[in-house]
Amino acid sequence: MNKQVVVGVVGAGRIGKLHINNMKNLSGVRIKAVSDVFADHLQDWFNTSGVEYLTKDYQEIIQDPEIDAIFICSPTDTHVEIIKEAAKKGKHIFCEKPISFSQEETLEAYEAVKEAGVKFQIGFNRRFDRNFSKVRAAVEEKGIGDLHVLKITSRDPEPPALDYVERSGGIFMDMTIHDFDMARFISGSEVIEVFATGAALVNPAIANYNDIDTAIINLKFANGSIGVIDNSRQAVYGYDQRLEAFGSEGSAIVNNETESTVSISSRNGIQEDKPLHFFLERYNDAFVKEIKGFFDAITHDTEVPCQFQDGIMAQRIAVAAKESLQTGVPVSVETTIKLELLN
Amino acid sequence: MNKQVVVGVVGAGRIGKLHINNMKNLSGVRIKAVSDVFADHLQDWFNTSGVEYLTKDYQEIIQDPEIDAIFICSPTDTHVEIIKEAAKKGKHIFCEKPISFSQEETLEAYEAVKEAGVKFQIGFNRRFDRNFSKVRAAVEEKGIGDLHVLKITSRDPEPPALDYVERSGGIFMDMTIHDFDMARFISGSEVIEVFATGAALVNPAIANYNDIDTAIINLKFANGSIGVIDNSRQAVYGYDQRLEAFGSEGSAIVNNETESTVSISSRNGIQEDKPLHFFLERYNDAFVKEIKGFFDAITHDTEVPCQFQDGIMAQRIAVAAKESLQTGVPVSVETTIKLELLN
Amino acid sequence: MNKQVVVGVVGAGRIGKLHINNMKNLSGVRIKAVSDVFADHLQDWFNTSGVEYLTKDYQEIIQDPEIDAIFICSPTDTHVEIIKEAAKKGKHIFCEKPISFSQEETLEAYEAVKEAGVKFQIGFNRRFDRNFSKVRAAVEEKGIGDLHVLKITSRDPEPPALDYVERSGGIFMDMTIHDFDMARFISGSEVIEVFATGAALVNPAIANYNDIDTAIINLKFANGSIGVIDNSRQAVYGYDQRLEAFGSEGSAIVNNETESTVSISSRNGIQEDKPLHFFLERYNDAFVKEIKGFFDAITHDTEVPCQFQDGIMAQRIAVAAKESLQTGVPVSVETTIKLELLN
Amino acid sequence: MNKQVVVGVVGAGRIGKLHINNMKNLSGVRIKAVSDVFADHLQDWFNTSGVEYLTKDYQEIIQDPEIDAIFICSPTDTHVEIIKEAAKKGKHIFCEKPISFSQEETLEAYEAVKEAGVKFQIGFNRRFDRNFSKVRAAVEEKGIGDLHVLKITSRDPEPPALDYVERSGGIFMDMTIHDFDMARFISGSEVIEVFATGAALVNPAIANYNDIDTAIINLKFANGSIGVIDNSRQAVYGYDQRLEAFGSEGSAIVNNETESTVSISSRNGIQEDKPLHFFLERYNDAFVKEIKGFFDAITHDTEVPCQFQDGIMAQRIAVAAKESLQTGVPVSVETTIKLELLN
Repeated sequence: MNKQVVVGVVGAGRIGKLHINNMKNLSGVRIKAVSDVFADHLQDWFNTSGVEYLTKDYQEIIQDPEIDAIFICSPTDTHVEIIKEAAKKGKHIFCEKPISFSQEETLEAYEAVKEAGVKFQIGFNRRFDRNFSKVRAAVEEKGIGDLHVLKITSRDPEPPALDYVERSGGIFMDMTIHDFDMARFISGSEVIEVFATGAALVNPAIANYNDIDTAIINLKFANGSIGVIDNSRQAVYGYDQRLEAFGSEGSAIVNNETESTVSISSRNGIQEDKPLHFFLERYNDAFVKEIKGFFDAITHDTEVPCQFQDGIMAQRIAVAAKESLQTGVPVSVETTIKLELLN
Repeated sequence: MNKQVVVGVVGAGRIGKLHINNMKNLSGVRIKAVSDVFADHLQDWFNTSGVEYLTKDYQEIIQDPEIDAIFICSPTDTHVEIIKEAAKKGKHIFCEKPISFSQEETLEAYEAVKEAGVKFQIGFNRRFDRNFSKVRAAVEEKGIGDLHVLKITSRDPEPPALDYVERSGGIFMDMTIHDFDMARFISGSEVIEVFATGAALVNPAIANYNDIDTAIINLKFANGSIGVIDNSRQAVYGYDQRLEAFGSEGSAIVNNETESTVSISSRNGIQEDKPLHFFLERYNDAFVKEIKGFFDAITHDTEVPCQFQDGIMAQRIAVAAKESLQTGVPVSVETTIKLELLN
Repeated sequence: MNKQVVVGVVGAGRIGKLHINNMKNLSGVRIKAVSDVFADHLQDWFNTSGVEYLTKDYQEIIQDPEIDAIFICSPTDTHVEIIKEAAKKGKHIFCEKPISFSQEETLEAYEAVKEAGVKFQIGFNRRFDRNFSKVRAAVEEKGIGDLHVLKITSRDPEPPALDYVERSGGIFMDMTIHDFDMARFISGSEVIEVFATGAALVNPAIANYNDIDTAIINLKFANGSIGVIDNSRQAVYGYDQRLEAFGSEGSAIVNNETESTVSISSRNGIQEDKPLHFFLERYNDAFVKEIKGFFDAITHDTEVPCQFQDGIMAQRIAVAAKESLQTGVPVSVETTIKLELLN
Repeated sequence: MNKQVVVGVVGAGRIGKLHINNMKNLSGVRIKAVSDVFADHLQDWFNTSGVEYLTKDYQEIIQDPEIDAIFICSPTDTHVEIIKEAAKKGKHIFCEKPISFSQEETLEAYEAVKEAGVKFQIGFNRRFDRNFSKVRAAVEEKGIGDLHVLKITSRDPEPPALDYVERSGGIFMDMTIHDFDMARFISGSEVIEVFATGAALVNPAIANYNDIDTAIINLKFANGSIGVIDNSRQAVYGYDQRLEAFGSEGSAIVNNETESTVSISSRNGIQEDKPLHFFLERYNDAFVKEIKGFFDAITHDTEVPCQFQDGIMAQRIAVAAKESLQTGVPVSVETTIKLELLN
């Protein structure tokens, strides 16, 4: 890379700080600005962050002509507006998932990005995990023959706070959306039908927010294979992220990454270590590869590794899953993206 | 055991021979008779079987006053008739699964057994597997807290012949019925709703018999927990029999039993042994424990470990799964057993 | 097998009873007699044993003209005398390890067996374990290339009583002798030098008997490869029986067999089951295969799978290991068997 | 850290570059200079290295008054001279292993460091591996009771070039020295006697350099426990770094870290991934923690985590192992460090 990419980050919560920290170790990247509505409370962090300026108003970043690329790490309901403004200013965009809670608004943002011709990457970090990408390769190269069944287990170590639940868009939009993307990524096929069951078994109070914390979601793929995702908001033993692709010539299984490879044998049995605690630990390397992919696409003007369409489709599956849970019957998913503005 | 139990076996196919072989090593059991419509072809086997007489006509066994207990290992469509006749003669009954393809006929058989007051055990051998019974104990003793999600993977090493498929009653009645029983056994709760998806992916010709070979079946339990079973008629790497019970305090996973514990490291990776090939190898010990349980119940006049009701309920779930597959929507399962004759 | 082999068993301790129990399930074998100096206390066991007569005096067995084969399961210091007498009477012999504590007496017994031309098998049961025999095959077929290093871990679940220690011949003769045989079996090569270190770490009182309970023994093989055995009289987590053959093209590792394949994940970690408790559980199948091999050799007049020479060589290595421990330097092992009587 | 530590690196080979790369991500560290006799060939690397100046002559670094700490990554035979010069100039020292090939020269360097009162850390990176440090903690906290047996397996993926072998000081000084340090680190006890066997099995040409490539080394510890290390210069399946600490209450085993957690089941078996290829991959995190520990000790004026004495003792064990291999008998190791100059 000869030219530096100048970056501004909107939102300095957990994920915004994570990306900033990872960017610091990348040559060819200059982190110029970060904005956050709670900027007043972030001064200590900012002082050691290596970022050049901190602002309360993300418009400063949008208007900064030196900034080439923007990372949108603010709450979901602000994404669409910022995408549209940033695209208009010709800035490349890295946006955390989900793009929005509204399919219409997501399409508006998509049109704005298409019109502006800027790069847009959605933050499906798991695609960059060494284990999942190895299984994707096995499926693609027919190492397990034709895919018949895809199984994904995805469990968080602890449930979110109830006020987070309230603003989360529901478990399918907030948590399962990663698994929906994994389903499309590993299978290389579109999800055409969803059937969801679930309940609030971890914390019954979650039901008050019209949400659940335990779910099983069946999937039908366009290529004829079938799949199932199971979720829980609380696996007391840690972040449980496993997957199995089963096909005509065998299966490929991703097991958890663990805290160590040590096993202790005692009178009580053989104790192995737990999975890495949560996504920061488990997907640490994946987060780094993810933004490397984004900057590579900018520098070499190639396709980003995870597209706007991927965000649209995962969102649609999440919406269909919610409808299925409410209606008690399977729901179809539209896989064509029609754009009014552009056509 | 002071008194010998005298046994007659109806049907000398694979499973009948298996039971006879296992009975030979049990003290307190005398295998007097075996019947099979193909008795003519069984002379060689019979000569070394240790059984006292071989007949073409199972009525000889029914009428033999010395025989205390009868093993029904003949084709499914003969079960109900034999059960009713044997019960009338006061013989204890061990019957292979499923009891029948018709829920009405199954209830008739149930009434006959109840009236006669004989012991009746259904052949759900997997309940006696050391691994599954350990997980059942963990669930029962709240070792994983409250059960939230139950997952069962059950795959055969190779698909059955098409003429077998034709007479099998379909994958749910023939194969998944074991998993439906496992779901009830491990959870200790009734299945109240089923949703099934699937396709003929292993062998498209199976579709000609209105059947499938790959399936995912969602379950709702009376206790509020949820479950999922995935089936395939062909796992090229062998008999795949795994299970996970996930709850509020952790999870219990059954992994496959393997041909050996040897692992070979080479330039290509680390090679572990495959699962035991099929049910004869995997459930070898379970088949022995199963009949021990039956004979113990006879000798000590206690309850059999696997009841007629278990057979009825598994059959109902199988019927509901088939209906769900055909209609594309979830189907409820009636969990009350109403008997007209007896009430 | 057309003709039955008639068997007499000398010694009805743990191992004698084990062999009798396994023989009961073999067709073609008739267990006629069992002798034990404590016969008075064995009446209850004998009544359900299926053996035809019980005697205090093994001479009855030696003199019984109907008996074809004798199992020597009595204390080590009685072996040589019984072997010589049985051989003279033309009886085939299965003898538990070690043959004797004296190399001269062992050679006398060997000569007697050679002269009589009877079958003689030494009870190195581990050769018949499915895991070890798989590794032996891998080494033989060069699946790991040329063998470079052989490592054996062998630990008992609990130390023997001190009065057993006193009569045991020491850890090398009593326990490690199995590992010395494994070293020869897996490598297919003779051990030519031994260096032993060790201490009484489990129970310091064992030192009073001039013995140790923890040992590491280095081996040099005739083929140029090297090996190491580590022993302990007490692994609190169960019977630890592992092995690694490392070569120019990879390695083959035998892991322990476990009580189940269940793993339980909780807040504390992931708990796997312990190894099978002791040799009766771990080598259950191997003990059956072992005597099948013996009876096959008799019936078909072929070579027994585990020869007299194997017993002689393992004993020599044990003697050399003891000398090495006492002198603190490596000790050579003579690999040629010279017979005065026969030559 | 308030004050920056200014660093100079002597030797820009593989390990020097590794440390420089890791230092770049540490706040509070400024890498001012790097020297290498082949500086002419390093210009391209230097341009992107972030180091301020490159020189052929390490004296420039020694004389640079701004430099606080020096990393000695040059060939072993240059270590002592540089240590003495750097200590005289009051610079803290991080030195790669081994300190030297001569025990006398090592003691001279030790005295120079003691006199100057500078920090000195030896590069035993494995102490910082998450797995080994977990086992060390288990041993220290008596999690496995009293240590009885320590077993270390250490195998490289491929043998070094013959010209490297010639200058390496032999396998014990070059490769096993890490395992000797591990033995002391895990046990928390001194090695008092060594017995070594081995041969040139991977590449017979290594014997021409009076060296071996396959070894088994027995250890006696001051605390009464015993140990064994096995080495090979070539494990075709990758870098094999395992360890077992066995004690009165159980065992703690370190298994290899692997390229992924994916397992592929096929007709041929179940394929797991190989170990991480070599030390750069396996000990990546450990190398970072290692230098963090060094800089922390400088900044807070505390003890370095891996001392000069550790280097001296590992070197002595290596010398004793070589003598044992040559003489064929066990060799004692002196565990007292006597300093003439200082006392």
